[in-house]
Amino acid sequence: MRLTTLSDYALRVLMYSAASGDTLLTIEETARTYQISRAHLMKVVNILVRHGFLKGLRGRSGGFMLAKSPDSIVVGDVIRATEPDFALVECFATGNQCIVTGCCKLPSMLNEALNAFIATLDRYTIADLMLKKSDFSIPKKARSFGTRGPTIRVAARA
Amino acid sequence: MRLTTLSDYALRVLMYSAASGDTLLTIEETARTYQISRAHLMKVVNILVRHGFLKGLRGRSGGFMLAKSPDSIVVGDVIRATEPDFALVECFATGNQCIVTGCCKLPSMLNEALNAFIATLDRYTIADLMLKKSDFSIPKKARSFGTRGPTIRVAARA
Repeated sequence: MRLTTLSDYALRVLMYSAASGDTLLTIEETARTYQISRAHLMKVVNILVRHGFLKGLRGRSGGFMLAKSPDSIVVGDVIRATEPDFALVECFATGNQCIVTGCCKLPSMLNEALNAFIATLDRYTIADLMLKKSDFSIPKKARSFGTRGPTIRVAARA
Repeated sequence: MRLTTLSDYALRVLMYSAASGDTLLTIEETARTYQISRAHLMKVVNILVRHGFLKGLRGRSGGFMLAKSPDSIVVGDVIRATEPDFALVECFATGNQCIVTGCCKLPSMLNEALNAFIATLDRYTIADLMLKKSDFSIPKKARSFGTRGPTIRVAARA
């Protein structure tokens, strides 16, 4: 199960913007900080501006910053804006050809699970995810944590 | 947000097996019924046998059927078995290079949301998804429901 890169990057941009306060950020600086694609970031920033999470200033000394305080940006709303669809299985997507569409009971169950997922994210704002600006400027040497990320703890059934 | 095709097909195989009762099913018949890839199905059936959801009988008149009653196959357990990882964002996956790994607060929030998703699926068994065998044999003409599947209802924030 995966979120799109769009959602991943959107949360990163908002976290970096929150840590940067009133400082205007640029696509270049943000791409360099996270070492991620400039083209992807451009798309993400456009979506975040269009949905009112970021405000953008055009021109040579332009950039972007949060459009409102971090505690008024709800994570669930960000994900609703950035996920192109929530097509967990084929029948939710265009081009669906599943033979039992219409009588199948999967969609309502999956909708319920999806909404439990989103409802959790609705309890968090960008303020809950805030880091210090210095967290984004770890010396290069210290960055080499290899390929180990945080552990996923999918709970065993209760 | 998507589940893998593996999970999608696994649920379909279990639903079809449940509707078929004691009748042995074959990969060929199941692939023909759903009009999906035989190779993918083979992989899915192997996983489901390995995890004790299906039992397989080898040989010319072999096939597969549910290994236990539909009401004792918990959907959450099936998804735990079939999703290769739950790497919602980059930092959960191998090859993670995100600079704020270690201090970032995203993983715990996403873990919580993921577990709310799985906990919902833990409340359902294959018995809740059961269809009649005849639901899988709709005359060809009636199958042309175009590309419209069920509606995804991602709830608005409460």
